[in-house]
Amino acid sequence: MADQQQNPSGEDALIARYFKPLATDPGAFGLLDDAATLDARGEDIVVTTDAIVAGVHYLPDDPPDTVARKALRVNLSDLAAKGATPAGFVLTLALRRAEEQWLAEFARGLGEDAKLFGCPLLGGDTVSTPGPAMLSITAFGRAPRGAMVHRSGAKPGDHIMVTGTIGDATLGLDILKGGAVATALTGDEAARAFLIGRYHIPQPRNALALAVRDHASAAMDVSDGLAGDLAKLCVASGVSAVVDAPSIPISDACAAALARGVAGIERLVSGGDDYEILCAVPEARAGSLALAAQRAGVALTTIGQVIAGTGAPRFLDARGEDITLARLSYSHF
Amino acid sequence: MADQQQNPSGEDALIARYFKPLATDPGAFGLLDDAATLDARGEDIVVTTDAIVAGVHYLPDDPPDTVARKALRVNLSDLAAKGATPAGFVLTLALRRAEEQWLAEFARGLGEDAKLFGCPLLGGDTVSTPGPAMLSITAFGRAPRGAMVHRSGAKPGDHIMVTGTIGDATLGLDILKGGAVATALTGDEAARAFLIGRYHIPQPRNALALAVRDHASAAMDVSDGLAGDLAKLCVASGVSAVVDAPSIPISDACAAALARGVAGIERLVSGGDDYEILCAVPEARAGSLALAAQRAGVALTTIGQVIAGTGAPRFLDARGEDITLARLSYSHF
Repeated sequence: MADQQQNPSGEDALIARYFKPLATDPGAFGLLDDAATLDARGEDIVVTTDAIVAGVHYLPDDPPDTVARKALRVNLSDLAAKGATPAGFVLTLALRRAEEQWLAEFARGLGEDAKLFGCPLLGGDTVSTPGPAMLSITAFGRAPRGAMVHRSGAKPGDHIMVTGTIGDATLGLDILKGGAVATALTGDEAARAFLIGRYHIPQPRNALALAVRDHASAAMDVSDGLAGDLAKLCVASGVSAVVDAPSIPISDACAAALARGVAGIERLVSGGDDYEILCAVPEARAGSLALAAQRAGVALTTIGQVIAGTGAPRFLDARGEDITLARLSYSHF
Repeated sequence: MADQQQNPSGEDALIARYFKPLATDPGAFGLLDDAATLDARGEDIVVTTDAIVAGVHYLPDDPPDTVARKALRVNLSDLAAKGATPAGFVLTLALRRAEEQWLAEFARGLGEDAKLFGCPLLGGDTVSTPGPAMLSITAFGRAPRGAMVHRSGAKPGDHIMVTGTIGDATLGLDILKGGAVATALTGDEAARAFLIGRYHIPQPRNALALAVRDHASAAMDVSDGLAGDLAKLCVASGVSAVVDAPSIPISDACAAALARGVAGIERLVSGGDDYEILCAVPEARAGSLALAAQRAGVALTTIGQVIAGTGAPRFLDARGEDITLARLSYSHF
């Protein structure tokens, strides 16, 4: 599987080739991390940016308030994984036309989340586009100087831990598109609604940010798929990993879909849109982080271990045999 | 003309209605300014964001390196007008497909400008879109705490000053579209190339940023048209203004187009894409700013005066009569 690390996804290769040479500031970390820091002479301002496009990251007829929440929360999720406290955001809103009703609901959802997460709007730009709607948010967080948690830093022996459950959102999207999961879960409205909700509204784990900063050796949020994102963390840290696939936390709704044979573990770990924190935690710190998660009301599960080496992470089934992953994560190009 | 201030452009009204209530942080300045500040405990990080869309802000077949330069420079122009020193930027790049040749030239232009202006890439997001390409940049600058220059602050008696020349870019766009200016300037290749260049590659006045911070009472960059942007500055400052239209600095190429009757002053002041600094400067400071501009090699011209009142700025012709402006500036909606 080492080949997969030699052939990173199209966008990663493009970034490495064309944009890494431009990232000359030490706070850019060579574009190999999920956020940058702006040295603010005393504390660091952690900067992250994520865009969502209608028809790519959300469906054009998704409720406007959930589109707003998703746009903000995918950025909050980055701040959480980097151990930063939200400080504010700027929004670029590109719309084909300004529809009052859509905007009113969009702004309501955005405002409620900004308040909920203590991350106020600082500014933005509103432009017209002949194409699909696009929302780009740049979010800012604070951290003590040098305290941002990086992708690099994982060491052999570290626990690999993940918050929440994995794979819900990709199944929720399948339901919205009327796919096989939709058919399999016909009649199970609770499961369908749960999975769709997980696609529409990520639950960023900002409540755990300070504990991640205190205890994790490396962290990132799972946005493109657990397998691919873990591979990125391993590459950045110069290590490999072994994951016990049956340990990967899944929801009851997800388990129901698995039981009906319409989705396998391969799909769950490569589907993306989870927005959970993936972190490597030294053995001696794992208990403390687990306790902090319990106090914060955030599920946290150990799914494997960091090992020495440079191969792609291995996912083992209940019999200890390698699971073959056709693709590691979502790639835009 | 007071009605024009009661009916701000569509996007301004949308922002005021839907997004101003979300701008709860004091550093957002009620979304009434061109940038926000992030209190970095000791100095301010000035934040600005501007997006450009293919077919809206640039032509799809514009040279990729100029697209990159424009995307960065429209943000640098904001930092200059706010009196901030560039510190870095993040880029969201939404593309239909990843074309190596286009990306290579884009990255080259971006890198050269990042170096030229001391504003390195800090991070970004690359996404696919089924629509036109879109580039959204969030740029950061530094300023001593509270020193950012605002739109508000202009006082009656202040000089109204503007850098560079006004109206070139809108005529350059006309030429690229094969409009009347193109026909009128047939054979005058130097004038055509100059105007097209002004559309493709803005010249942000960052060399003047510190002097603007030292001397201006209010400032913003001219991006949507001088008339509309001056109206915004007046509204923010609670004042009005009188502009002596013949004093508005225009280039020789622009003068040639005017002489051939294919464009009037109304068009030049409402066309947009100038990316010059517009500022209000107390009488006692105007000489110092002019001297600083001379030393920086930046043309700076007094075009009028701030007056008491709340009416829209008046533009007077050579005979002292009001020029009627059909539209003040470009609006996206």
